[in-house]
Amino acid sequence: MIKASVIGATGYAGQELVRILAGHPSVSLTGLGVQSYEGKRFSEVYPHFQGIVDLVCAHTRDPALVEDADVVFLGMPHGHSAPLAREALARRGKVVDLGADFRLRDGEAYTRWYQVPAPEPDLLARAVYGIPEIRRDAIAQATLLANPGCYPTSVILGLAPLLETGRVDPESIIADSKSGVSGAGRGASLSTHFSEVTGNFSVYGLPAHRHTPEMEQELSRIYGKDLTVSFIPHLVPMVRGMLSTIYVRLTGEWTQESLRALYAERYAGEPFVRVRPPGQYPKTKEVYGSNMCDLGVYYNDKKNMAVVVSVIDNLGKGAAGQAVQNMNLMFGLEETAGLTHIAIYP
Amino acid sequence: MIKASVIGATGYAGQELVRILAGHPSVSLTGLGVQSYEGKRFSEVYPHFQGIVDLVCAHTRDPALVEDADVVFLGMPHGHSAPLAREALARRGKVVDLGADFRLRDGEAYTRWYQVPAPEPDLLARAVYGIPEIRRDAIAQATLLANPGCYPTSVILGLAPLLETGRVDPESIIADSKSGVSGAGRGASLSTHFSEVTGNFSVYGLPAHRHTPEMEQELSRIYGKDLTVSFIPHLVPMVRGMLSTIYVRLTGEWTQESLRALYAERYAGEPFVRVRPPGQYPKTKEVYGSNMCDLGVYYNDKKNMAVVVSVIDNLGKGAAGQAVQNMNLMFGLEETAGLTHIAIYP
Amino acid sequence: MIKASVIGATGYAGQELVRILAGHPSVSLTGLGVQSYEGKRFSEVYPHFQGIVDLVCAHTRDPALVEDADVVFLGMPHGHSAPLAREALARRGKVVDLGADFRLRDGEAYTRWYQVPAPEPDLLARAVYGIPEIRRDAIAQATLLANPGCYPTSVILGLAPLLETGRVDPESIIADSKSGVSGAGRGASLSTHFSEVTGNFSVYGLPAHRHTPEMEQELSRIYGKDLTVSFIPHLVPMVRGMLSTIYVRLTGEWTQESLRALYAERYAGEPFVRVRPPGQYPKTKEVYGSNMCDLGVYYNDKKNMAVVVSVIDNLGKGAAGQAVQNMNLMFGLEETAGLTHIAIYP
Amino acid sequence: MIKASVIGATGYAGQELVRILAGHPSVSLTGLGVQSYEGKRFSEVYPHFQGIVDLVCAHTRDPALVEDADVVFLGMPHGHSAPLAREALARRGKVVDLGADFRLRDGEAYTRWYQVPAPEPDLLARAVYGIPEIRRDAIAQATLLANPGCYPTSVILGLAPLLETGRVDPESIIADSKSGVSGAGRGASLSTHFSEVTGNFSVYGLPAHRHTPEMEQELSRIYGKDLTVSFIPHLVPMVRGMLSTIYVRLTGEWTQESLRALYAERYAGEPFVRVRPPGQYPKTKEVYGSNMCDLGVYYNDKKNMAVVVSVIDNLGKGAAGQAVQNMNLMFGLEETAGLTHIAIYP
Repeated sequence: MIKASVIGATGYAGQELVRILAGHPSVSLTGLGVQSYEGKRFSEVYPHFQGIVDLVCAHTRDPALVEDADVVFLGMPHGHSAPLAREALARRGKVVDLGADFRLRDGEAYTRWYQVPAPEPDLLARAVYGIPEIRRDAIAQATLLANPGCYPTSVILGLAPLLETGRVDPESIIADSKSGVSGAGRGASLSTHFSEVTGNFSVYGLPAHRHTPEMEQELSRIYGKDLTVSFIPHLVPMVRGMLSTIYVRLTGEWTQESLRALYAERYAGEPFVRVRPPGQYPKTKEVYGSNMCDLGVYYNDKKNMAVVVSVIDNLGKGAAGQAVQNMNLMFGLEETAGLTHIAIYP
Repeated sequence: MIKASVIGATGYAGQELVRILAGHPSVSLTGLGVQSYEGKRFSEVYPHFQGIVDLVCAHTRDPALVEDADVVFLGMPHGHSAPLAREALARRGKVVDLGADFRLRDGEAYTRWYQVPAPEPDLLARAVYGIPEIRRDAIAQATLLANPGCYPTSVILGLAPLLETGRVDPESIIADSKSGVSGAGRGASLSTHFSEVTGNFSVYGLPAHRHTPEMEQELSRIYGKDLTVSFIPHLVPMVRGMLSTIYVRLTGEWTQESLRALYAERYAGEPFVRVRPPGQYPKTKEVYGSNMCDLGVYYNDKKNMAVVVSVIDNLGKGAAGQAVQNMNLMFGLEETAGLTHIAIYP
Repeated sequence: MIKASVIGATGYAGQELVRILAGHPSVSLTGLGVQSYEGKRFSEVYPHFQGIVDLVCAHTRDPALVEDADVVFLGMPHGHSAPLAREALARRGKVVDLGADFRLRDGEAYTRWYQVPAPEPDLLARAVYGIPEIRRDAIAQATLLANPGCYPTSVILGLAPLLETGRVDPESIIADSKSGVSGAGRGASLSTHFSEVTGNFSVYGLPAHRHTPEMEQELSRIYGKDLTVSFIPHLVPMVRGMLSTIYVRLTGEWTQESLRALYAERYAGEPFVRVRPPGQYPKTKEVYGSNMCDLGVYYNDKKNMAVVVSVIDNLGKGAAGQAVQNMNLMFGLEETAGLTHIAIYP
Repeated sequence: MIKASVIGATGYAGQELVRILAGHPSVSLTGLGVQSYEGKRFSEVYPHFQGIVDLVCAHTRDPALVEDADVVFLGMPHGHSAPLAREALARRGKVVDLGADFRLRDGEAYTRWYQVPAPEPDLLARAVYGIPEIRRDAIAQATLLANPGCYPTSVILGLAPLLETGRVDPESIIADSKSGVSGAGRGASLSTHFSEVTGNFSVYGLPAHRHTPEMEQELSRIYGKDLTVSFIPHLVPMVRGMLSTIYVRLTGEWTQESLRALYAERYAGEPFVRVRPPGQYPKTKEVYGSNMCDLGVYYNDKKNMAVVVSVIDNLGKGAAGQAVQNMNLMFGLEETAGLTHIAIYP
């Protein structure tokens, strides 16, 4: 059994990790690190774990969390991951960081967007940005994994097949994304207050959101040249789920069929990416609680434009699910191990 | 025009008062007192008032709020109303307090339940507990009005006709109440966090909730003898609305028809209480944004028990609407003035 | 008093009309026409009108609905408005049609999109497409008014100031719109089933939605030349409200300030269009139950692109509210008469 | 592997069964019977099963569904289960019926409440009402299992420990239950229409609901003497989850501690019933998607009354989860097999 600890276990992504790892056939949960609930049982913080995960939470800096673990998952606010990662790596543990600290290769850009110092260059250089469907081999070799943001995951999986063809206008990309509220985390604030959010759809992150450089970095790598993305996030009055509507002008000749075939072939055999059949639209609830990414692709012949609709659970494929998928690759396990949850419906 | 100020204007009940008063034909809003947004325009705090109420907010202790007003509405946390009320009364203004400070005639009970000192006895003695359908004449004479809590309003209106007959078992009353989340106010907390509350029905306030003594006090007055209530509040994942299901054993002979007739007659002519016709169940959305209280009455012949279902908007008849209805009476205005909002549906 | 009848009164737009007209100072509701509830009181269909609108509903074809009315509001499925409109006009009544029948000037296009015969050309020629902020004078002269769709209203108000300058790329417009579920009407179906929609964000209307030609027609008129719109609608798990995120490439030089100033000046003095101050984002709940359209405008200097966010209540400014605003103009009333509702919040 | 077929697979309980069985380590799903989607793949009806359960649906009367199965799950409208059950039993298959047909031992009562003929007496006599925590041994011997209703499950588990002591007033029981909307099934109707239900809490089922006789039958069996229940159901604007607040007068001496200890001991070792620790209230989302029943017990010393709060997922322990738990017992499998889902949170 692989010994795993989760530091930042009581955040929403953290507790989703605990849920997945508690049911993982090759993992034993050995430590939970928290900032606010030290000394409490995990099931006191989250009563739905009563009788299931009753581990006592340790402080995030408790050395046992790192010493005893084969893999350390970090779900910390940005700026807090680097020292924990360094310690774990020094002890030959592997690290999966769900925060933003290792996602941007350019440390200066990181500091500009996040207003905290970037991790040291040696750590940054070591980190692998991990979307398995894009970089499976590199992930399998990684010891320090930068788990992608939820918005970038939905947009990158939605655009990769097209970018790989090179037949797009790289300045035309618009990603209009809509996220459930759990993406904002567990911290109470007016902007996540039930009475304020319920029945209330809104836009935010204008003129520019932190996930933009992450998207541009990875999409440019796939495309092979620099490109830009106009990314606008919205808040949907629902808890989980994310849908990105992605607009991109094409070059060359396309049809609805050739567009769909491109996606179907690109993702054939992928256990966690499904291309919806013609006439179907993906919906967020169809991936609820799962590690799936569902795609719909539509061709606008008047504009030679593709509209790609990409749906994930922001806490699943957008966070904890993808983290475990990455861990499976890093340890040579079956990629789907512990991730066979079917979406809860209705 | 009656000059009105609202102290505690940015709480949910406060802003609902502002909405109602801004459309009241005989009222001019002259001052808004706040604790956290001093110096900001009201429409900066609540953008839906842009172009409608752009008044600059003053501090709650700003003397102008009291000096210039014919009526002062207080929407303050408990323990804060008494000094403001005393000042306003000294200047011959009338006071409508939406908080709890003047609701319990027994100052000791108040202190026990609310953990703050009770207002001085002279103020307590002066306060009139104001449900117009129960005590219209006393309210018309009042200068200091204790506006009832939302739970008590729904339960008292639901039980008054039966209690007035005296033909009930006074120890059998159970009030199982369900409230929308706006009743918990605008303060951000984990218990009102969108991701925690959405899709999540829960009970709270056990073994005993603060609104119990208020209910028992007023219901006992109506009944003419002491009685007790088993009151259990629940939180519904919705913003506005409250439904109380009230169980009471009857004495004497009853039928479905006689029970319904009692209610229909008792509330005939009341503009804000409607008894639903046979076969209909009241629903919270049918009073959304209005000052209505809708009642359904059902007779259980096997147990000689009445089940009364009482529905209000917790911010309307449960708070700001009733406050304005009381003000109308206190100033000799048409009782429905400014309160003709029809529920927003669907 | 203007005598008004509403044909199609029990649909959601119809009942919202009834709500507004019941509180209109210059209107007397004289008739309600329905397809399914003939002979029932309106308040039996919608209990929240108990004691407020207890009129008995007539069949939609009852001649009294047209004979006795100074203005007839039609809220019928498409294809059903023309004969009713003709009759009303013959009796010198004015007509406000909330359906789609008179919106497209090109009858053939209408038939292609709606699969029913278009109204006769003389009626089509007579109809005025009514967004008051765009065509106030023409509306004041109209006897047959085509009340716009909700999506077009939000997009047209969001784009008009820019199109009037001519400094846009007319082929670059993308309107990514998100609507509450009440826009789908009151008819029960799997796609509007509570358990299917709740917590479920989805896209629909691809590759092309019926509101596209309506938008293109009116936007082209404003722009002075033909243009196209890529319009993609989405369904938000909430009841009321609509937000459109509109992307348009600009020509010439712009700044955030010049862009915002354009909108502020264009809509200065408009009672129902508000431009949000810098740093604020419009939210759907801030117009809930009102006739407001709130706009936010954001400049992307890297792309010389404007992002306009436009928010309305789909049943308010998107249907019944705008219908009454149009009626006010058609009868020479104060434009805001009966439309002073402040959004219900929270 | 046990071969299982689900007849009525596209109802909400049916598809939840499919979800659970698809992940069950000892079950192979061999047939899906439907009424409306014959010939379609299951994943066309429910796209979230794409790539997971792509079985083609057969008609409910297709003999293969019964012939090939070791166990047949029936999720049919009432009145339709008996012939299917008889056929399956004749072929030595076991039957778990999720409908109401075999729940009431008294066929006449069944016909009175459900308005359809009762199954023949030999079948009724053979059926075992299956709540494992109450009748584990009988279930293990059963070939025809009547899977309980969701409301009765929540109430029976909430009351059993007290009834077994005999120290209650058997005429005092009030069960005030609140259910999510998925309990009303997948059929589209006005009463489950998104725009009608959202933000709308309501009561229904008065004066008496079909689940009352089922509760009274089973509670009387546990108590050893006839008792009655005043049961009032409510509809909560959420999809899944049920909370029953149960009031019962006690006899003899009790304390908060003795009451809680009774429940803790009674359910010690039960994998699917958890008694919340003092100071905690159970919430519906804490059992979302799981087979758990969470209980809170509170003592009212003024009335010598217990208030028991019982929470389940109406499609989990209230339907499909309990059905699989029963099947596990009937086949001598580990009782928790296939049921280890942890609640999805938040």
